[in-house]
Amino acid sequence: MHAIVVSQFSKMLKNLLAILGEAEKFAAEKKFDTAVLLNSRLAPDQFNLAQQIRTACDTAKLGAARLADREKDAPVHADTETTLAEIKARIESVIAYLGSYKPDAFAASAERRIGQPRWNGKTLSGQEFLIQHVIPNFYFHVTTAYAILRHNGVGIGKRNYLGDMPYRDPA
Amino acid sequence: MHAIVVSQFSKMLKNLLAILGEAEKFAAEKKFDTAVLLNSRLAPDQFNLAQQIRTACDTAKLGAARLADREKDAPVHADTETTLAEIKARIESVIAYLGSYKPDAFAASAERRIGQPRWNGKTLSGQEFLIQHVIPNFYFHVTTAYAILRHNGVGIGKRNYLGDMPYRDPA
Repeated sequence: MHAIVVSQFSKMLKNLLAILGEAEKFAAEKKFDTAVLLNSRLAPDQFNLAQQIRTACDTAKLGAARLADREKDAPVHADTETTLAEIKARIESVIAYLGSYKPDAFAASAERRIGQPRWNGKTLSGQEFLIQHVIPNFYFHVTTAYAILRHNGVGIGKRNYLGDMPYRDPA
Repeated sequence: MHAIVVSQFSKMLKNLLAILGEAEKFAAEKKFDTAVLLNSRLAPDQFNLAQQIRTACDTAKLGAARLADREKDAPVHADTETTLAEIKARIESVIAYLGSYKPDAFAASAERRIGQPRWNGKTLSGQEFLIQHVIPNFYFHVTTAYAILRHNGVGIGKRNYLGDMPYRDPA
């Protein structure tokens, strides 16, 4: 669970920071304000880029916190970011927070019953919460953030999304 | 591993079938050919919807097959689907194939060294392959398929993407 929620989600958030760096370069080249991108969306009733990134961050942060029964120590974010610098700072604060989880933090998580404010007392097991809720939600918002930038012409490809792989060379 | 690659990926592919059902209704209402949607994309140098779905299917199919050392028995798909019915049949064939994996099929997978044709002999461990390659790729293509339909006005929301949750009622 640590390998997914901490190591892999941190890697994806770092990839997202690098992708936002490409967006920044693109905006500088084309001479427009990056706030245009943060306000972009793929459909009028869909979250814009800023809110996609906020939600990806919260899915990772609260996913780890709920699984490890550490909800009270998760950093609070006010959802007021309007600049790329503020959005990047939020991502960085979540990466730092995930870094505070030791590998054994999730030893009892698979069996824990986990609820959320909107679920009215209903619960999932930790294993169900991770596999059916946290993972698909996290990748949904990271991929949609990527798609919004791709749709707006930022020069990124799937390699930017996936990041480096720990390949071992042939023997 | 079975819970992710077989159970959860099958669930997501079933959700995708239901989403395509919504797309079909939308096209009938607006009186256009669903092939328009299959040829849609979010950027000119990005896969269209049909190819996003093919790649999601292949990621699930070959992900399971490579992890379980069963690559030779994976169904072969010719990538020639041009209609929604053909694309849905492909998804269904992958769901059926995933259903052939018993829970113990992945007992030795985490430690296996796994390569792919494009990797020139380089390998990942099964655990790395699952977490850093299969899962992010699968959700990337499913989410992008969803995003293309959402962008084209199909009336779907994240609930369609996530599907039902196995909630337990409060005690």
